[in-house]
Amino acid sequence: MRNDQLESLLNEMTLQEKVGQLVQLATPFFKGASDRGHITGPMVDMNITEEDIEQAGSVLGASGAQETINIQKKHLEDNRLGIPLLFMSDIVHGFKTIFPVPLAIGGSWDLDLAEKSAEVAAKEAAISGVHVTYAPMVDLSREPRWGRVMESTGEDVFLNSEFARSFVRGFQGDLVNDPYKVASCVKHFAAYGAPEGGRDYNTVDMSEWMLREQYLPAYKAALDEGCEMVMTAFNILNGIPSTGNKHLMRKVLREEFGFDGVLISDWGAVKELIPHGVAEDEKEAALKAAEAGVDIEMMTSCYVNYLQALIEEGELKEEVLDEAVLRILQLKQKLGLFEDPYRSANPEEEKSVILSDEHRQVARDLASKSIVLLKNDKQTLPLDTSEKVALIGPFAKSTDILGPWSWGGESKDTITVETGLRQYVSSENLSIAEGCGIEKGSQELVDKAIKTAEGADTVVLALGEHSDMSGEAGSLTDIRLPQVQLDLIKEIRALGKKVITVLFNGRPLDLHGVIEHSDAIVEAWYPGTEGGNAVADILVGEVNPSARLTMSFPHSVGQVPIYYNHYNTGRPQELNDPDFRFQSQYLDAPNTPLYPFGYGLSYSTFDYSEVTLSSETISKTDTLTASVQVKNTGEVAGEEVVQLYLRDLVGEVVRPVRELKGFEKIHLEPGESKTVEFTITEEQLRYYHADMELKSDKGKFQVFIGENCTVENGKVFELK
Amino acid sequence: MRNDQLESLLNEMTLQEKVGQLVQLATPFFKGASDRGHITGPMVDMNITEEDIEQAGSVLGASGAQETINIQKKHLEDNRLGIPLLFMSDIVHGFKTIFPVPLAIGGSWDLDLAEKSAEVAAKEAAISGVHVTYAPMVDLSREPRWGRVMESTGEDVFLNSEFARSFVRGFQGDLVNDPYKVASCVKHFAAYGAPEGGRDYNTVDMSEWMLREQYLPAYKAALDEGCEMVMTAFNILNGIPSTGNKHLMRKVLREEFGFDGVLISDWGAVKELIPHGVAEDEKEAALKAAEAGVDIEMMTSCYVNYLQALIEEGELKEEVLDEAVLRILQLKQKLGLFEDPYRSANPEEEKSVILSDEHRQVARDLASKSIVLLKNDKQTLPLDTSEKVALIGPFAKSTDILGPWSWGGESKDTITVETGLRQYVSSENLSIAEGCGIEKGSQELVDKAIKTAEGADTVVLALGEHSDMSGEAGSLTDIRLPQVQLDLIKEIRALGKKVITVLFNGRPLDLHGVIEHSDAIVEAWYPGTEGGNAVADILVGEVNPSARLTMSFPHSVGQVPIYYNHYNTGRPQELNDPDFRFQSQYLDAPNTPLYPFGYGLSYSTFDYSEVTLSSETISKTDTLTASVQVKNTGEVAGEEVVQLYLRDLVGEVVRPVRELKGFEKIHLEPGESKTVEFTITEEQLRYYHADMELKSDKGKFQVFIGENCTVENGKVFELK
Repeated sequence: MRNDQLESLLNEMTLQEKVGQLVQLATPFFKGASDRGHITGPMVDMNITEEDIEQAGSVLGASGAQETINIQKKHLEDNRLGIPLLFMSDIVHGFKTIFPVPLAIGGSWDLDLAEKSAEVAAKEAAISGVHVTYAPMVDLSREPRWGRVMESTGEDVFLNSEFARSFVRGFQGDLVNDPYKVASCVKHFAAYGAPEGGRDYNTVDMSEWMLREQYLPAYKAALDEGCEMVMTAFNILNGIPSTGNKHLMRKVLREEFGFDGVLISDWGAVKELIPHGVAEDEKEAALKAAEAGVDIEMMTSCYVNYLQALIEEGELKEEVLDEAVLRILQLKQKLGLFEDPYRSANPEEEKSVILSDEHRQVARDLASKSIVLLKNDKQTLPLDTSEKVALIGPFAKSTDILGPWSWGGESKDTITVETGLRQYVSSENLSIAEGCGIEKGSQELVDKAIKTAEGADTVVLALGEHSDMSGEAGSLTDIRLPQVQLDLIKEIRALGKKVITVLFNGRPLDLHGVIEHSDAIVEAWYPGTEGGNAVADILVGEVNPSARLTMSFPHSVGQVPIYYNHYNTGRPQELNDPDFRFQSQYLDAPNTPLYPFGYGLSYSTFDYSEVTLSSETISKTDTLTASVQVKNTGEVAGEEVVQLYLRDLVGEVVRPVRELKGFEKIHLEPGESKTVEFTITEEQLRYYHADMELKSDKGKFQVFIGENCTVENGKVFELK
Repeated sequence: MRNDQLESLLNEMTLQEKVGQLVQLATPFFKGASDRGHITGPMVDMNITEEDIEQAGSVLGASGAQETINIQKKHLEDNRLGIPLLFMSDIVHGFKTIFPVPLAIGGSWDLDLAEKSAEVAAKEAAISGVHVTYAPMVDLSREPRWGRVMESTGEDVFLNSEFARSFVRGFQGDLVNDPYKVASCVKHFAAYGAPEGGRDYNTVDMSEWMLREQYLPAYKAALDEGCEMVMTAFNILNGIPSTGNKHLMRKVLREEFGFDGVLISDWGAVKELIPHGVAEDEKEAALKAAEAGVDIEMMTSCYVNYLQALIEEGELKEEVLDEAVLRILQLKQKLGLFEDPYRSANPEEEKSVILSDEHRQVARDLASKSIVLLKNDKQTLPLDTSEKVALIGPFAKSTDILGPWSWGGESKDTITVETGLRQYVSSENLSIAEGCGIEKGSQELVDKAIKTAEGADTVVLALGEHSDMSGEAGSLTDIRLPQVQLDLIKEIRALGKKVITVLFNGRPLDLHGVIEHSDAIVEAWYPGTEGGNAVADILVGEVNPSARLTMSFPHSVGQVPIYYNHYNTGRPQELNDPDFRFQSQYLDAPNTPLYPFGYGLSYSTFDYSEVTLSSETISKTDTLTASVQVKNTGEVAGEEVVQLYLRDLVGEVVRPVRELKGFEKIHLEPGESKTVEFTITEEQLRYYHADMELKSDKGKFQVFIGENCTVENGKVFELK
């Protein structure tokens, strides 16, 4: 359909039909849905009619080629103007082939593989009839208590921005011409990752400067990559709920960022303006959301019940509605739905494409590259597979390793740690015990585990959080492993065997109680469908660990928030005088985390040369090259994430003590050296000033290149 | 000295002499000081000369009538124009007669007694030669990890503002005519109480709206009360250190608040602009602080070494310097120092006034009214003094109950719990054991304690934090009692005696490990010089507890920040459906604290009638009366803090679920009833809108009156 045809279509539409396009309902509301059994109740609750459903613009959560085809078909029969439905779903880290959770993917520092994972997810989703995915979630977070950190790539603005671009490319790519792509909806605008107390949906408050400095850039990066949609956040931002925040949506998103795509509310967020206390009723909620620029209302009925009246009463301009409708129609047009409302939905192709060997291989690669080796005393790992191994713990045979936001994934398709390990360890050498449940245990289970462990040389403890303990609304005040698991480690440790702990979890943990009783610790996160294979690959050394943390692991929750790119304070801790009181420190804990940003071990070791600079100065037009030679001094091939950090020594506003500005993941054979070069440009030296302008100042900068954010290997240069 | 004489004095001064007035140095730098032994080193470090000292404008930390007289005398001999020194000190909660820490005083909800305590402190300080106190500290804080919460009256903007006024009245009153007053310096401007992670001096970041809504009003209240001085905060605020923050100081403080008194940096804060990374060197630091409007530089030498050059080089206007000097001279003039440079310093009077019985009585009254009864199962308290009592714990005989910021207080003058209790419990009925140290213990001590406890009917455990564990730079990640004390409680509890725990500490604690092993818990904070007496008064029922918490006690540090006047979120917890996941909550802890704001028990019980309103509407010109009848239904006389909370149901920005807007502390004999009336005015309904205007909106409000912030007893009215 051409643009002028879209305009005429818009002109043909009644007010009611226009409003309909702004309505998004879940699958069971639609006539073609397979499970429409009990929809009358919800329809009464929402005060919507069959006619409203017939005029709705989009569907939430439908998938399966036949299902989406059926719904679309029915809909087109009922819809006066034959406007096809948009099908949207949360395809966050895989559709049926589940990849590691995004926090793990971030740790791979592998943008290509991240893109590839999104590409696979998009293909499986597209064939299944999905048009839009609510991903990527790019919310920067410094809050391990917040359950949804698993959905973010971490605490760094630059890294999150890079991953935002990769995911958008992978999901959406050339949406118009590539049928295996889905439109990407970046979320949650804005700053959803900074809820007070780490409690999901809670108050977010920060300065406009901080918002621009740390929180907004990753959304912007996704938009710069062409991301078609944006989702609002549940939280208030500086007193106003994002979903009714005109400044945020009209001024920042539309005007400043130039976003002209579809803006959708998060689930129910329009109506939530009422409990937020900025709207008296649904009518006022509809008005505020519409004025703020929210195009689609997800799963509440303020728009459908009140927008027409608001327009007729002159409270809201019809142009606001028309703009929203046009944006939605344009997205349908881009997806080619007017020509082919079923797009790529294909029940036949579903069978061959979904969970294909190729897709599984991507999942396995990415999972093994996302697993972080946190500790490895006395080269306990890789496992000696000729020795006797006891695999113990609630995750030994668990398929709950897909993580939150993997509703398309299925247990039956998931490779457990046991299955993975059996490929490498013979049956007589491998014994298994549960040890305890995730939150509960019994003496019987412990006794069995001890017996199992006693017969082994090495114990692999597979521990962690069940997936409901993170994800949306999965906030915790205590970020240690459940006590029953800590008790189990102690019991096992007392046997004097080598102990390797493999962790399955969705947030940085306080590892006290684990670290002192483990010779090695492997952070597997939720590794996805191929998780068991990937874990086994790492444990036996088939894959050399190369992931690096993208969120700091605190010593305890009492240190939160703790993140590497903090400001210096006026009284930074003088490490040469720890007894001096009047400095910014805790009396009972260090200022540093247990494991810092960028940290992760390898089965190899890497030596870095001194940093060399192509020049000691840089200008607005010249660039500078900072380079370093990295050598694999270990005995096996491995990958190293070479990280570039800058520090602006004096600014108009305070500057972080370190800022990641570049990285490169390199492969090195044993003994091999490579020179890694980073080009530094004036653009990288810009920052938001007090007047909210992004610009650079003349002066000195430190550049550091090394293995994680604590690197001291650096030089100084000057911006002239 | 008249104003025109001040102007001529200013005209006579050289640039160097003017700069001198902006310099504040510690006592040992001055010639008349008794301990000037080793000042050469510090002088070299600061790069200052004897001449600089002779021209300095003020002294930090000197006290004692003779000492201040000696210093002033020497100074006037050396100073060309005979400009007297200003003597400034941290007289925070008492000078020699130490009152409870401000967090405890806040809990008294007794503004008159708080004022009286400041009056006593001012009198003792004035006679000792002090002219200015660096108090009150009115920083709102929601951070129990932050050691300096003990110096704040708590988490509430209204209560802090009321106490700010009381303290300023008490310290400063009619400064010009009353020789027993000292000038008051409110601190720390601004928002020092919100350091990230609760780590002192750390980054503060919040929206301009939040700053105005919660953090600025208490400073403003102090200024409205006539407070002569303001101190800058160490922290950055939204990217810019307060001490170099032009927006904050020139625009908000000077222009908006109309403050025309002296602005002083906190200790070394001008030079700290360098580690903050907004100044390259001391010269730039001097320039930025001066431009921001800092008049006096405390304890660093950026001004003395560089201001003159900056003016001569045209970087800084001389008018900026002149304005600062004039403000300082005006303060000296107000204090009458040009006429009598010794003001009230009086070695003879010192002897009779300091620690007088009258002053001690105020301290005892205020301390007993600041002690919060947190728990009292089965009426364990008051103590039956005819029974055998074992007083056990590191605070049984401790004089470390003055708390941080009580440098003038002395151990020898401090009443311990033992001493206090001996007044009421006979020697044969009272046995004492240490049990353990504050952070360390021994089996021997525990054994002795057990033996002691075994012979008693009731055990009073005196536990807590040593005073260095809070106060400036006293931040903790773990806010439980030290493990050795938690172990002691357990051991004692196992004996099956009644256990009463009395706590000495400077912050809200996580009381797990205490609460389940204590029949009664008494929060004594740091009660000051008369602390032991006050604790005894409470324990035996000589005084009926009437204090109420002004900071929430979290269940654990993982809930922090937790405070009563939070916003509702779009998904508030539905308490009738705790199993519903998608609401703002923790999976492992409630959203509510262990003990809420306003909470505290009494030995009486109080019944509240329903709230009655004089009208269901209010207008910009009408007021409304909300009243309640309160009855003492207990058997002893007691005081109740009747608290008024409002909730604005719909706002242009989100509104807190509760806001304290009034309170009255009433005394009721057993069986007595009183009607408490609160007048509600439109002014109380104003709040900062998105445009930073303070104004009210038409609409509905809830009013609640009751015993703490969780009260449900309320009515609705409407602003027309």
